[in-house]
Amino acid sequence: MRLRNKPWAVSLVNQHPESVLDRPDPQNTINWTDRFADDTKPLEIEIGSGKGQFITTLAEQHPEKNFVAVELQISAAGMILRSKLAKNLNNLQILCADAANIDCYFAPDSADVLYLNFSDPWPKSRHEKRRLTYKSFLQKYQKIITPHGHLEFKTDNAGLFAYSVQSMNNYGMNFDFVSVDLHNEVHEIIANNIETEYEHKFAAKGNPIYALHADFEVK
Amino acid sequence: MRLRNKPWAVSLVNQHPESVLDRPDPQNTINWTDRFADDTKPLEIEIGSGKGQFITTLAEQHPEKNFVAVELQISAAGMILRSKLAKNLNNLQILCADAANIDCYFAPDSADVLYLNFSDPWPKSRHEKRRLTYKSFLQKYQKIITPHGHLEFKTDNAGLFAYSVQSMNNYGMNFDFVSVDLHNEVHEIIANNIETEYEHKFAAKGNPIYALHADFEVK
Ligand SMILES: C[S@@+](CC[C@H](N)C(=O)[O-])C[C@H]1O[C@@H](n2cnc3c(N)ncnc32)[C@H](O)[C@@H]1O
Ligand SMILES: C[S@@+](CC[C@H](N)C(=O)[O-])C[C@H]1O[C@@H](n2cnc3c(N)ncnc32)[C@H](O)[C@@H]1O
Repeated sequence: MRLRNKPWAVSLVNQHPESVLDRPDPQNTINWTDRFADDTKPLEIEIGSGKGQFITTLAEQHPEKNFVAVELQISAAGMILRSKLAKNLNNLQILCADAANIDCYFAPDSADVLYLNFSDPWPKSRHEKRRLTYKSFLQKYQKIITPHGHLEFKTDNAGLFAYSVQSMNNYGMNFDFVSVDLHNEVHEIIANNIETEYEHKFAAKGNPIYALHADFEVK
Repeated sequence: MRLRNKPWAVSLVNQHPESVLDRPDPQNTINWTDRFADDTKPLEIEIGSGKGQFITTLAEQHPEKNFVAVELQISAAGMILRSKLAKNLNNLQILCADAANIDCYFAPDSADVLYLNFSDPWPKSRHEKRRLTYKSFLQKYQKIITPHGHLEFKTDNAGLFAYSVQSMNNYGMNFDFVSVDLHNEVHEIIANNIETEYEHKFAAKGNPIYALHADFEVK
């Protein structure tokens, strides 16, 4: 999805270089140590955060962890930033960049969890390589995820879900949790689920929500 | 599901020992060579065939292959038999037995495809071991499936599907095909799909049909 252009977003982002890294050069390593108030906390990353409802809620609930929201669009980054400022989250950083370079922006074995929420489906076969669960992306995630870390993926898109299940299985990932109807799982799972904007919208339409948690551990 | 008792089924089965093996002793190997008109054809097995709509249609469409319908209930076996006789299928055998002994009834590397259609879901965790995709069953399937063979699973049950995806992944199986909405796939897939009785009923209710094809090849 492409957000409507938000002129305020660009100026807000420009006023907050301490919170947003705007299209950094992939050839320079990012010094995350300096960017977080406390760098000893475990790190979690969301790719394609959109307006940021999920990651800002998660960061609020988990002050003991650090989070990075990776988002391609500057308008979306501006909205995540606005929410970060309102909630005063010093454990959340925003990276306005393409996930294709994710392994340049993060050191090997640096993130415990990587979240992919309602990623663009790219339904045409000729766009397969753009899907965030295509094997070249999985390779990059594997580099930056810690040995005991894992990936959490949610979508309402049947085609992208089926593709991702097969892609992650064929890559050799181990499945820790699978649901084809997340909103009708047992109470505990529903209670712990943090909804994204897309999730809220599509679940309200009656679409099932699919979820998959997987790790790269060699068994 | 338990079928209503059909008195005619038992007598029909008893009249056709050439077509139905009724609860054979798992300690004796079955001589399939003698039971098929032509034993050189590749073999495919369905477990839990119910009334047999799927396997009799498949056997009709593929005279170049041999098929075995494995079914626990004698009433169901009688219905498959009735259909076999009506269609005059000399490439279909019926085994009235528990799939828990499947590796006793078939020689190692003897089946190219194993079908599981709308298997009983056994939703309670304490019944996990009864699910036909529990790891002890996968072990048995692995023994009897040829090195280039595979398993094809369909269900409308969200819980059993999610469980089976995880179970087969954790067992180390490779996914060849995944769908969480089989009846809305591309035309070619729909056209090649043979519906089972359960599939027909649940799809008509608007339930999505889930499908998974997986093999045991070590990649
Ligand atoms: C369909 S939206 C979902 C937004 C949000 N996760 C939700 O569930 O409501 C996908 C988001 O991913 C972003 N995105 C797509 N491809 C990306 C990439 N390669 N790198 C970073 N962000 C990306 C898009 O800009 C968009 O904001
Ligand atoms: C829910 S019905 C589905 C029937 C059919 N496959 C369909 O899709 O319409 C499940 C069938 O599997 C059979 N079944 C269940 N457990 C079995 C086992 N361990 N061995 C053989 N058959 C079994 C049952 O008797 C029943 O006929």
